Amino acid sequence: MSILETINSPDDLKRIPSHKLTLVARELRQLIIETCSKNGGHLAPCLGVVELTIAMHRVFNSPVDKFVWDVGHQAYAHKILTGRRDSFHTLRTLNGISGFPKRAESCHDIFDVGHSSTSISAATGLAVARDLAGRKNKVLAVIGDGSMTGGIAYEGINQAGHLNKDLIVVLNDNEMSIAENVGAVSNFLSRTASSEFMFRFKKDVESFLGRLDGVGKSMLHVARKVEESFKGLLTPGMLFEAFGFDYIGPIDGHDLPKLIETLENVKKFDDAVLIHVLTKKGKGYKPAEDNPSLFHGVGPFNIETGKVLKGKGGGTSYTALFGTTLCKLAADDERIVAITAAMPDGTGLSGFAKEFPDRFYDVGIAEQHAVTFAAGLAADGLRPVFAVYSSFLQRAYDQVFHDVCLQNLPVTFALDRAGVVGNDGPTHHGAFDLSYLRHLPNMVIMAPKDENELQHMLATAIDLGRPVAVRYPRGNGYGVALDQGYKILPFGQAEIVREGGDAAILALGTMVYPALVAAKQLEEQDGISLTVVNARFVKPLDENMILDLARRNGCLVTMEENVLQGGFGTAVLELLEEHDLTGVRVLRLGYPEEPVTQAEQHELRAMLGLDAEGLVFSLRNFLKKS
Amino acid sequence: MSILETINSPDDLKRIPSHKLTLVARELRQLIIETCSKNGGHLAPCLGVVELTIAMHRVFNSPVDKFVWDVGHQAYAHKILTGRRDSFHTLRTLNGISGFPKRAESCHDIFDVGHSSTSISAATGLAVARDLAGRKNKVLAVIGDGSMTGGIAYEGINQAGHLNKDLIVVLNDNEMSIAENVGAVSNFLSRTASSEFMFRFKKDVESFLGRLDGVGKSMLHVARKVEESFKGLLTPGMLFEAFGFDYIGPIDGHDLPKLIETLENVKKFDDAVLIHVLTKKGKGYKPAEDNPSLFHGVGPFNIETGKVLKGKGGGTSYTALFGTTLCKLAADDERIVAITAAMPDGTGLSGFAKEFPDRFYDVGIAEQHAVTFAAGLAADGLRPVFAVYSSFLQRAYDQVFHDVCLQNLPVTFALDRAGVVGNDGPTHHGAFDLSYLRHLPNMVIMAPKDENELQHMLATAIDLGRPVAVRYPRGNGYGVALDQGYKILPFGQAEIVREGGDAAILALGTMVYPALVAAKQLEEQDGISLTVVNARFVKPLDENMILDLARRNGCLVTMEENVLQGGFGTAVLELLEEHDLTGVRVLRLGYPEEPVTQAEQHELRAMLGLDAEGLVFSLRNFLKKS
Repeated sequence: MSILETINSPDDLKRIPSHKLTLVARELRQLIIETCSKNGGHLAPCLGVVELTIAMHRVFNSPVDKFVWDVGHQAYAHKILTGRRDSFHTLRTLNGISGFPKRAESCHDIFDVGHSSTSISAATGLAVARDLAGRKNKVLAVIGDGSMTGGIAYEGINQAGHLNKDLIVVLNDNEMSIAENVGAVSNFLSRTASSEFMFRFKKDVESFLGRLDGVGKSMLHVARKVEESFKGLLTPGMLFEAFGFDYIGPIDGHDLPKLIETLENVKKFDDAVLIHVLTKKGKGYKPAEDNPSLFHGVGPFNIETGKVLKGKGGGTSYTALFGTTLCKLAADDERIVAITAAMPDGTGLSGFAKEFPDRFYDVGIAEQHAVTFAAGLAADGLRPVFAVYSSFLQRAYDQVFHDVCLQNLPVTFALDRAGVVGNDGPTHHGAFDLSYLRHLPNMVIMAPKDENELQHMLATAIDLGRPVAVRYPRGNGYGVALDQGYKILPFGQAEIVREGGDAAILALGTMVYPALVAAKQLEEQDGISLTVVNARFVKPLDENMILDLARRNGCLVTMEENVLQGGFGTAVLELLEEHDLTGVRVLRLGYPEEPVTQAEQHELRAMLGLDAEGLVFSLRNFLKKS
Repeated sequence: MSILETINSPDDLKRIPSHKLTLVARELRQLIIETCSKNGGHLAPCLGVVELTIAMHRVFNSPVDKFVWDVGHQAYAHKILTGRRDSFHTLRTLNGISGFPKRAESCHDIFDVGHSSTSISAATGLAVARDLAGRKNKVLAVIGDGSMTGGIAYEGINQAGHLNKDLIVVLNDNEMSIAENVGAVSNFLSRTASSEFMFRFKKDVESFLGRLDGVGKSMLHVARKVEESFKGLLTPGMLFEAFGFDYIGPIDGHDLPKLIETLENVKKFDDAVLIHVLTKKGKGYKPAEDNPSLFHGVGPFNIETGKVLKGKGGGTSYTALFGTTLCKLAADDERIVAITAAMPDGTGLSGFAKEFPDRFYDVGIAEQHAVTFAAGLAADGLRPVFAVYSSFLQRAYDQVFHDVCLQNLPVTFALDRAGVVGNDGPTHHGAFDLSYLRHLPNMVIMAPKDENELQHMLATAIDLGRPVAVRYPRGNGYGVALDQGYKILPFGQAEIVREGGDAAILALGTMVYPALVAAKQLEEQDGISLTVVNARFVKPLDENMILDLARRNGCLVTMEENVLQGGFGTAVLELLEEHDLTGVRVLRLGYPEEPVTQAEQHELRAMLGLDAEGLVFSLRNFLKKS
C-alpha cells in the first residue's frame, strides 16, 4: 500500500511523519502524471506546487482556513489530499472531478475559478467576511507570477494592502505564466529574485551599517532609513511593500521543511503578508520541465516519451491554420500586427512571432489592455489582430465596446475556442461571444463552416476595416482542401449549401456540416427536403436570404454553438419581428442557459443535441408538427 | 477683445508672449466655469489641468504629437485651445461639443474616451504604430491618480515599461479620483509626494555619502547602490521605476514656467517617462476647490453662490432613494455590505458609509475587483450590494459571469444610470445591461416602474439569495408616495397596471408610466383599448402572463430603455419561439444599434420615440395594420 492511500483528508496528512513527506510528494506527482497522461490536464502547473500544497495542508486547517487557488489549474494535489484520490482518475471527464476547484465538489474548494487573477480579490472578500463575523480563520490566496500581469490582481492588491487584513498571498513564481512571461513586472521579479548577488550585497551593506555606531544620532537615523530602504528595494518585495504587504521570501518552493517553517511563522501574523515562493513548472517530470509551455495544459501523452497523442479530426487544427494564414496575409500587408494575451502557442501565433517579431505583441494575461492597445494601433493606421479564446475576451467586453466599437476601429478579434471547449468545462466554453458582441455598434461577426473558409474570413475581416470578430472552434478541421489564394467574402451574405423545399436550416459555423448530414438523413429516411444555409455572418445577417426563405417555407431552424439567449437564432427572431413577419415557425438550437458541463467536445455536442443525430431528432420532432 | 479670442489653434497659443500665459489660464477658467454653470459638466477636473494643458500645447505640436486624455473629462481647456472656443457654449448639448474627446469632432482628439484608465494602453498602441511607420512624433497620456487604481492602467504600464518606447505619461495627481482616493497606491503617492521631509532627508544622505571617499572601492560601490536605492525609494517614482519608466517629479501643476521647462526637457527623451504633476481639483473656483467631489461632474449651478440648481422631476432621485433604502435594510440585516467603485456620492452610498463604516467598501475605480470581492464576501455568508453605473459594470462582465453567476452567489448589482444618461453621451448610457446580463446563468434582472417600487425590488433582490441586478435610471422619480415597509415581490411575476382588450403593452421600468399615458391617449383619441403590464422581471420573465396575453390578443408591444439586440423585447420573442407560438405580432421599442448621442434625457427619449408622444405614434402605426 502506498503512503498516499493512507491519506483521505488533511488530518491524515498531518499525521504522516515529517521524514515521509517527500514520499507523499513523489506519489502525488506519480498520480498526477499518470492521470494527465490519460485524461490530459494542467500538468506542469500542478507538478510545480506539490510541495507547496503539502506544506499548506500540513500547517493550516482546511476548510476552516480557506485556500483560494488563482486560475485553479494547479489544484490537483489539493484535490487528491482532500478526499478525492480515488475519484481522481475521472479528472476532467464527464461527471468526473473538475480540473479546477469547485465548491460543489468539496468543502475544501472555497471559490470556483478557471479564469486568471481573481484570487486576491476573492480572498480579500473572505477575509473581510471573516472579520465581520468575528471569526479567526486564515485566508490564503495562491497566485502565479503570470496571473500578476492581470489588472484585477492589482486592483485586489491595492485594496488588500490598504485594508491590511489578516491575509496571506502566496506568490507562486515560476518565472513564466502560461508561455514565457512578459512585461516589466516579470523582469522586475526575475531580475531581483534570481540574483544571488543581491543577497550578498544586502549582507555587505548591513555589516557596513553596523560599523556606523558613534557617528552620531542623526547618522544612525540615516542608517536605519538606509536599512529600511534596502529591505524594500533590494528584494522583490519592493512592489508588494509599496502596496502595504509584509514581504517574505523568496523561498525555494520545493524545499518542504523550509516551506513548512515559513508558513508556521507566517501563521502568527495578523496582517497582509506576501510569501514569494520560487517553483519550477513541471517539476519532477523531465519532459514537462523541458517544455513547460507544451505541458501547461496538455492532451493525453505517452509517459515514457513525453510525446503528446494525436488529436481527433481529419485536418489541421483551426488554431494552426489561423496562425499560418495570418502569416501569409501579413507578408502582403504590413499594417497587420498580431496580439496575444500570454498565449502565443494556444492561439497559434508562435510562427507569426518568429516571422514578424516586431509586429507581434504578447501583453501578458491582460485582455483589457490587449484590446485597448489594439485600438491605439488601429487609430494610427494599423490592422491589429487580437487572437484570444472566446471565454477570455469576456474580460475585455467594455474595451471592445468603448475603445474599438464606438470608434469603429479596424481591429480583428480572432476568437478561438468558440463553442464547447471540452474538458476544461463551464469557465472555458466559448458559449457567450455571439450574445455579448452582437449588440455592440459597428461590430461584424462571422463564423466559418470549415477550416478552408476560416482563411477567407480572416482575409475578409482584415479587409473590412472595422471591428470584426471571427469565431472558430477548438480542435481539428475536416481535412477539406485548402484554397491557395484568399477571397474576400461578400459582406453580410450567407451561402446556400443545400437546396430543399420543405424548410430551411440556418446553420452557423461548426453546425453547417452536421446540418448537412442531418438533412441528408431526413431526406433519405423521411422524405423531407431541407435547404441548408451556411450563415457565415451573424452580424449583419443576410436579411434578404433569410426573409425570403422564411416567406417561402414558413419554417426556419437555426443552429449555433452559443447560448440561446441573445445569439444567432435570436438575431433571426429579431429580424422577423422587424419586418413584422408573423406566422413563421422558428426552432432555435444551441446551448441552454444552465452552464454546460465538462466532457469531450463530441460528448457535449451529443448531450446538447447538436450532433447530427440530435439534430435529426429535433428536426423530425419540429417538422412533423407543421 | 480677450486674449483667448486670439487663440484659434495651438499655433496661436505658441505665439502668445510667455508673461501673458497666466492671463490665458484665467480666461480659460472663466469660460469653463461659465459654460459649466449653464450646461453642467466635469468642472473640477477641467479646472485642475488648465496650466498643464497650456504647457502641453505650448511645448508639443498637436495633432502631430498625440495627446491621449484618460477618462477625457478634463479636456475642456484642450478643446477651447484647439479651435472649439466659439462652439464651446454648446458643450454637452444635443449636436454640440462632447464632454469628452471625440475623433469625429477634431483632429486634435486622438482617441475617444469616457471610461477610466485606458490612456496608457491606447498611447502604447499609438507609440508602437508610430515606430513601425518610422515616424518621430511624441505620444502623451494624461492620467489621474484615481484612474491609476483601474487594473487596465497597470496592464498598460506593465507592457509600456517593458517595451520602453518613446512615450510620456503625465500622472495628474490631485490626491483624489472622483471622490476621496482609496487604496494602497494612493496612500503611497501621497505619503511620499507630500513630504518635504523626504526631500531634505535625501539631501542629507547624499552629503553623507559624499564623505565616504577613501573608504575603499567596495564601499564606494555600496555607496553608489545606496544612492540609487534612494533615488528609487524615497520618491513617488519607486513604483513607476520598478515598472521600467523614468520618473520625473513631483512638479507643481499650477506653476506654468516650471511645467513648460519640464516638458521641454522631457521632450528630448526617447524612452518611457512618467511625469508626476500635482494639481488641485477645482483650482481657481472656490466652491469647486472646497467641494471637488460635488463639482467633479455637476449640473447647472449659480456661479456666485456655487449652489447647484434643482434637477427636474417630482420626487427624490432614484440614487438617493437607493441609498436610504439600503441603510434601512442594512439596519435589520447585518449580512448586508455595500461596495462602490470610487463613487460613494454618485451611487448614493455616502449615507451608508457614515452609518455603517465597517460594512462599506470603496475599492477605487476597480469594477472588476469590486465584483470578485463581492463574490468573496458572498461566498462566506454575506449579502453584498455593489452599486455601480450600468455602463461601468461593463468592465466587470467576466467577473459577473465567472465569479458570481457560475457560483450562484448572492450578490446584488444596483445598476444606477440604466437607460439614457443624458449629456455624458454614448460612453455613459446604460444601454446594454439587459443584453450583457440576460444570458448569464442564475442571474435575475429586475427594473422598477417608479421610485416606490425600487425599495421593494431592493429588498426582494437581497432576499433572493442569488445574483440579482436591479436597474434604475438617472434622475428623479415621479414623487409617488413611498411605502413605509418593504414587500418581497413575487418571483418572476409581472403586474397588470391597466386592463384593455385590443393589445398588450409589456413595459419595463421607466417605460411603464409613459406607456400608461400613451394607452390613455389612444383610448381617448382612437378608441383602442390597451393592457399595460409592468414587467418587473426581465429574467425570469412572467411566462404565463405573457403567453396568456399573446394568445388572447395576438399582439404584443414591448418597451424598454435598452438596446433592442438581446434585450427585454428579445426575451419575449425567445419565449414565443420556445412555445412554438406563431402568428403573434410583436413590436419591440427600445434603443437602436447605433450609439445614442448626448442631450438631455427627455430630449433623447423624445428622439428615440420613447416618450408618450413617440409611443402613441408607434402604437398607432403598428395597431392600425392589425
